[in-house]
Amino acid sequence: MQISYVDLATGTARRETLADPSAQLGGRHLTAHLLSSSVDPRCDALSGENPLVFATGLLADLRLSGADRLSVGAKSPLTGGIKESNSGGTFARALARLGHRALVLEGEASDWTLLYLHADGSRLELLPAYDLVGLDTSETVVHLARRFPEMAAAALIGPAGERRLRSAAVAVTDGGGAPNRFAARGGLGAVMGTKKVKAIVVERSAARPAVHDPSALTELRGQYHDALRANPTTADWFPTVGTAGMMVVVNGVGGLPVCNFSRGESELADRVSGETLADLILARGGEGRTGHPCAPGCVVRCSNVFPDADGRAVVAPLEYESIGMLGTNLGIFDLDTIAQLNRVCNLEGLDTIEVGGALGVAMEAGYGTFGSGDDARRLLEEIREGTVLGMLLGNGAAVTGQVLGVRRVPVVKGQTISAYDPRAVKGTGVTFATTPMGGDHTAGLTIFAKMDHRAAAGQLEASRTSQLNRAGADALGLCSFHLAPVAGLLHQLVNAVHGTAHDETFVQDLGLRTIQTELDFNRRAGLPSTSDRLPAFFCTEGLPPHGAVFDVPVEALEGFWHED
Amino acid sequence: MQISYVDLATGTARRETLADPSAQLGGRHLTAHLLSSSVDPRCDALSGENPLVFATGLLADLRLSGADRLSVGAKSPLTGGIKESNSGGTFARALARLGHRALVLEGEASDWTLLYLHADGSRLELLPAYDLVGLDTSETVVHLARRFPEMAAAALIGPAGERRLRSAAVAVTDGGGAPNRFAARGGLGAVMGTKKVKAIVVERSAARPAVHDPSALTELRGQYHDALRANPTTADWFPTVGTAGMMVVVNGVGGLPVCNFSRGESELADRVSGETLADLILARGGEGRTGHPCAPGCVVRCSNVFPDADGRAVVAPLEYESIGMLGTNLGIFDLDTIAQLNRVCNLEGLDTIEVGGALGVAMEAGYGTFGSGDDARRLLEEIREGTVLGMLLGNGAAVTGQVLGVRRVPVVKGQTISAYDPRAVKGTGVTFATTPMGGDHTAGLTIFAKMDHRAAAGQLEASRTSQLNRAGADALGLCSFHLAPVAGLLHQLVNAVHGTAHDETFVQDLGLRTIQTELDFNRRAGLPSTSDRLPAFFCTEGLPPHGAVFDVPVEALEGFWHED
Repeated sequence: MQISYVDLATGTARRETLADPSAQLGGRHLTAHLLSSSVDPRCDALSGENPLVFATGLLADLRLSGADRLSVGAKSPLTGGIKESNSGGTFARALARLGHRALVLEGEASDWTLLYLHADGSRLELLPAYDLVGLDTSETVVHLARRFPEMAAAALIGPAGERRLRSAAVAVTDGGGAPNRFAARGGLGAVMGTKKVKAIVVERSAARPAVHDPSALTELRGQYHDALRANPTTADWFPTVGTAGMMVVVNGVGGLPVCNFSRGESELADRVSGETLADLILARGGEGRTGHPCAPGCVVRCSNVFPDADGRAVVAPLEYESIGMLGTNLGIFDLDTIAQLNRVCNLEGLDTIEVGGALGVAMEAGYGTFGSGDDARRLLEEIREGTVLGMLLGNGAAVTGQVLGVRRVPVVKGQTISAYDPRAVKGTGVTFATTPMGGDHTAGLTIFAKMDHRAAAGQLEASRTSQLNRAGADALGLCSFHLAPVAGLLHQLVNAVHGTAHDETFVQDLGLRTIQTELDFNRRAGLPSTSDRLPAFFCTEGLPPHGAVFDVPVEALEGFWHED
Repeated sequence: MQISYVDLATGTARRETLADPSAQLGGRHLTAHLLSSSVDPRCDALSGENPLVFATGLLADLRLSGADRLSVGAKSPLTGGIKESNSGGTFARALARLGHRALVLEGEASDWTLLYLHADGSRLELLPAYDLVGLDTSETVVHLARRFPEMAAAALIGPAGERRLRSAAVAVTDGGGAPNRFAARGGLGAVMGTKKVKAIVVERSAARPAVHDPSALTELRGQYHDALRANPTTADWFPTVGTAGMMVVVNGVGGLPVCNFSRGESELADRVSGETLADLILARGGEGRTGHPCAPGCVVRCSNVFPDADGRAVVAPLEYESIGMLGTNLGIFDLDTIAQLNRVCNLEGLDTIEVGGALGVAMEAGYGTFGSGDDARRLLEEIREGTVLGMLLGNGAAVTGQVLGVRRVPVVKGQTISAYDPRAVKGTGVTFATTPMGGDHTAGLTIFAKMDHRAAAGQLEASRTSQLNRAGADALGLCSFHLAPVAGLLHQLVNAVHGTAHDETFVQDLGLRTIQTELDFNRRAGLPSTSDRLPAFFCTEGLPPHGAVFDVPVEALEGFWHED
């Protein structure tokens, strides 16, 4: 496997073969490793000094459900620390098929550029992209598909990324060629925009990956998919209600963000639950889909396509975090409205969580009324039009709160937390505070743990376990929803593919190594230990209806990784 | 001497007598000491956790020219570190006369408040101030003077401070009772606004300070004023051209900020020089004044009153840094226009340096044209009106650059540097980078040193000497312009007043202790060592016409205070 480095300033590329083919460098672990060894952690994240890394996992392109996730990594312009955001879709598989474990964009192009990776010898070509400037994500892939009939997958930015907004995402094409998957968090789209790279296109290839022990892989693959099909969560719950199934769970513990995290529960939550969503999709039919795979071959299929009343697709997917942050967090409990807001974010190439956080803060400042879909649409339109208010919102909740003078701003390390109020889902609060990723639930969601989520006891341990597991999964390129049913098989799969001899501690070890590398980056970037905290209001303001505050001691948070 | 602490949340006050009357705790040293020992350095600067300290110097109210400066200190909402900003005017003298070395505002009032310090026993009274809300600084003191005929001095905020804008200043009344002096930097007006304290009024008193050796003081006072009158800079240059005399000097070394620090010299500089300014003031007559004292009894009298063509006062004073940042930095070379802009800043209670920096960045982003007074006025009007653009600008250059996507933003630690391009006045560039105060020329201006200001050699030493001297002067409550002529007398004065036995190293020792206390605060606040840097463009972009870049090694900057 190899890594290609593209120097956008000179238009040249160089290739490096991974020294040890069995090296466990993939996904989030590889992005952390590459960034740590090549970047001045103190650099300006929105400058040519900050590379953008696209990495595949250790199990990519092996026809394993959920193992083809793409890790995108850079120094985050939101947090000032290291960031990895991963995505479904087909890009990682296509990249792996060209023999690539990673693609690294360095420097800045002088004009808008499109990067094309040829199947033939993995030749890299830099093409002008001035004709793509200003196109939304959907228009961009329509253009790309027409121009490049052999396109297997693309990663791209929308207008938000072009404008270097800190809530800009990197969009990735799915199995249908639509740019519906996102490496959304941390402002990585702004890093891509700073490089003036509008899109990366990977050409189709029929190559197959080298595997150390193909028959062992075949055997293990069968066990792997059997395990997923035998587990009620992965086999039934996710394909039926999708991630939106979380609505009932989180509302049940009183941890739903309502009106900028001012309440934790709503009697209206049923209107936007996964069950209601699934019923509506099925009732409307047409282009609507439940149990939609985010990448081909996925057994879990937690995605969906949300149709309008006439059955025409509005957005895909509609996920719990988007419903929470663009919906309930704004006091909006109407799926059609939320789907429309989500659609605009997807077309612009914006992170729904960061934008939802920013809109909530703006509404708290009086720039809109909670519950008003019209106001939310208008604020999104400001972002689209690039007004000053729009630029403010598009740069995230932290700066929005700073400028509009709001004290209740739900961010950690400058990044909006997701739709889990840390007062009622305390383990995830610990994750928000302590993960090197900033306020990011994907780094260690604890809501699946069987525990009292509003009690302080046990939350440090729950977060730690989840953070290690998920960092390990991210390094494997594996969807975290897959983790529980197949945990015992993962080291065996890696051994079969790479000829290694890992034992069952492998995933957690990999997670710890990944996090240690990231913590070291953040330390060198100068991120203060004081950033391992939640905003004060979570610690002082009781959350209705249960009155919970976040009471895990700050010393425990700031010392969370010390023993490591 | 005593310190009064006012708890605004409970409306109670407590008093503390300084344990050792000879303790060298005054001015900036005292603000640093009080903040370090009482504040969680990691607190939110715009919350009740951050106290606001008003401190007098060690030589206050002794009829010594320039020794009555007021130190205002808090954690800065701009830099996230400790801040002291000092001001002329009569507030420190009035406070000292009531036996106060410091007044500390703690917590937050629930509604707008006016604090009245009675001469009688230094009784403190908290009065409602809802009728002052929204008044500009001038209207506020007119109201106060009418209501409190025994008012000796006031410290107050304008609408900018009420709105908690991070470029809000604390205004202080001068000898004529006008709010023309400012503790301008660091956003301390926003800290006062957060506390909902609109003004502090100190009542007149006839008390005289206790002095250890009155006859020695009388003798030394004579020598002190003789020395100031014998020095051409303090006796002639400052009273004639004021700080604006710096224009010719800085333009001469090619370090003038022109159009957001894109050029270092202008052939138009003569139009806004101190000499032109003085000629114009004298020619217009009327209320115009050169050689105006910022506090009663000042020999140096660097201030002025700038009149319009009809002789009516427009603004007082018009200083070099304001002419630089609101004028040449915006491409404006017209004194009447600059005076008008300065007037608006004074009335709103805004730091001219921070606002000038923000407007320069906004013009670079296309929100106005360099050289257009109309555009500058319009942008200031946005701040006054509280539009989103205005709130952005009013929160400073750093956030303005972040939101509007500008890369050339002249800030250090989130605070705008002043009108000395660090590429051409490199010692001051070292100060900007390394002072715990953020980008603040008052912490160590090197332009008076006889050296090649564009060469890298010797700048670390020049900055260090200046930083120690000025921190010492700030701790004494002494105007830094006085320092050179009277340096040998200062320890003797302190000894005569306080019965101490300091030697001639006293001022520098005091400076070092002050800075060490501040560095420790910043370290505990989590300010990264990476913040001891200048923005990258100063290090890479040659400054016309000399092509200088800032080339003092970053390692030397980040290690600047290590041996201390």
